[in-house]
Amino acid sequence: MIKIDSHNHILPHQIPNFKEKFGTGGFIQLHHLEDGHADMVRDDGKFFRKVEPNCFSPEKRLEEMDQFNVDVQVLSTVPVMFSEWAKPEQTQIVNRFLNEDIATTVQKYPKKFVGLATVPLNDPELGIKELHFAMKDLGHRGVQIGSHYGNLNLNDKSLFEFYAEAESLGAAILVHPWDMMGKDTMPDYWLPWLVGMPAETSRAICNMIFGGVFEKFPKLKVCFAHGGGSFPATIGRIQHGFNVRPDLCAKDNNVDPRKYLGKFYIDSITHDNTMLKYVTELLGIDKVMLGTDYPFPLGELEPGKLIENHPDFSEEEKARLLGGSCLEWLGMKEEDFQ
Amino acid sequence: MIKIDSHNHILPHQIPNFKEKFGTGGFIQLHHLEDGHADMVRDDGKFFRKVEPNCFSPEKRLEEMDQFNVDVQVLSTVPVMFSEWAKPEQTQIVNRFLNEDIATTVQKYPKKFVGLATVPLNDPELGIKELHFAMKDLGHRGVQIGSHYGNLNLNDKSLFEFYAEAESLGAAILVHPWDMMGKDTMPDYWLPWLVGMPAETSRAICNMIFGGVFEKFPKLKVCFAHGGGSFPATIGRIQHGFNVRPDLCAKDNNVDPRKYLGKFYIDSITHDNTMLKYVTELLGIDKVMLGTDYPFPLGELEPGKLIENHPDFSEEEKARLLGGSCLEWLGMKEEDFQ
Repeated sequence: MIKIDSHNHILPHQIPNFKEKFGTGGFIQLHHLEDGHADMVRDDGKFFRKVEPNCFSPEKRLEEMDQFNVDVQVLSTVPVMFSEWAKPEQTQIVNRFLNEDIATTVQKYPKKFVGLATVPLNDPELGIKELHFAMKDLGHRGVQIGSHYGNLNLNDKSLFEFYAEAESLGAAILVHPWDMMGKDTMPDYWLPWLVGMPAETSRAICNMIFGGVFEKFPKLKVCFAHGGGSFPATIGRIQHGFNVRPDLCAKDNNVDPRKYLGKFYIDSITHDNTMLKYVTELLGIDKVMLGTDYPFPLGELEPGKLIENHPDFSEEEKARLLGGSCLEWLGMKEEDFQ
Repeated sequence: MIKIDSHNHILPHQIPNFKEKFGTGGFIQLHHLEDGHADMVRDDGKFFRKVEPNCFSPEKRLEEMDQFNVDVQVLSTVPVMFSEWAKPEQTQIVNRFLNEDIATTVQKYPKKFVGLATVPLNDPELGIKELHFAMKDLGHRGVQIGSHYGNLNLNDKSLFEFYAEAESLGAAILVHPWDMMGKDTMPDYWLPWLVGMPAETSRAICNMIFGGVFEKFPKLKVCFAHGGGSFPATIGRIQHGFNVRPDLCAKDNNVDPRKYLGKFYIDSITHDNTMLKYVTELLGIDKVMLGTDYPFPLGELEPGKLIENHPDFSEEEKARLLGGSCLEWLGMKEEDFQ
């Protein structure tokens, strides 16, 4: 029974000074501290978050994977690194750096890590080029994208060529919430993470469904983070909206949104037995895969525990959730890691 | 078995020209059409939505209530009428007009309608005065409030005196999502309603829990719209966030958010048997009440059907869901409507 963590985040050990390089700022830097931690800090000095060595040291990650019997991690960057707000040429340079860094780690430990690229979708043409390079030249298996890019939602026609390329390449797409709606007016209690992120994921799923993305690209392999955010629990409202206001909801795709349940994947990060069971019933066991958000505290602190200790899944179902669904999403086999 | 609809919306038949009155615009007007419909239009000419006579005619509502055996409607305004973006003195005048209009309808049909006020919480002191007037002088049983007021969230200390007054008056509070996060960047598919609204309700619940509102005002009677939005399904993530980042989540109230399940009400507008069952198990049958969003299409088009046809509730549980919970929330008895 292979155990693959489909959703976790890694940073390079060192990040170039992009502000100096570009002459304009706003980029994240990594300040290493004497105690081994590092601070992620915007180049205007604004603190973002503290990270532990397991965020930037592959070897530290391997130790902790052993501890929880995680066989493989599918690596993706930390979404704040997308730098989607910058000029696309700048974004591409930052993304290329991240893609090369993850590729180096995967090449060093090819039985333990798989890489997802980051691409400048603030310019879809550049995004396509970077995806092609990352998969063909760097060996990535797919790409992590945000839930929107500024005013560009995932239904935007300018992204359809990107979807076509991703489908043709067999890319595994992880849609991660970023940047969070409402963040400027929810300053307290981490609500951009606790409320904004689940909403962002629902926004992404709705835009892809109603925009006809799954209809037009039926072989696209998309996984949505955090158990699909608030989408699975609000599908009743969403379907009802489609039924009563087709003038608004069906303008680009006249198919009942519920028909796409089972056409995309989600990860298991629900923090709740009832909701994990609910989403597997809604989407099918085959469409749910272990994700942890490692090494961040909002993730599953004991990777795989929710699935492994779940009272309602058979051993076969657990094997699918822990590894089988993710292998299918990646287009890989268990033997690739032996 | 009394059947009370806790969540529905009504408009006055005529709305004054507030732009003319105040010399500044942005307010909603009602343009009656020859076919009996009316258009809600901002005074800058921007169309908001078309409504049917059941939105502004109490007599038409009574007919439709009969049709679905609804005994009582708890009337509240349409949230776009809050006018919370205006100067508070203007908001107060608009809100007073709405409060008097609903009071007139309730006084005409006191066995069929109950009124909820609208108050200018963009200035909490004015809000307190209007709540007092609406309950003491106009006979309202409570108040409908938004999920935030601009940058003012429901945890804001400036609202605590309002909560104290509402608790002391025994006001039933309906928290309705308004205005929607992300609306400016989600132009398609009605997503401010399908994604933004459930997020707004979760934002409201989280701010009230983490802000210590339920802790400080244990007798406050709050009902959240649309089955609590995305909150019930993401309580796992929210509680986990509280556990791992108390520095962010517990700064104002150090109590596990799950302990407040059962301390507030939600309505039944989930459009889904599984989710309705889930929320009753999470909060308790006693804390869930019939709501419909009548007369709007995103609501329950056959008021009460979801509860009445639900396979998992006993007759006693259905009675509680259809009327008992709402009577308790309102502080009223079945005899009040006989």
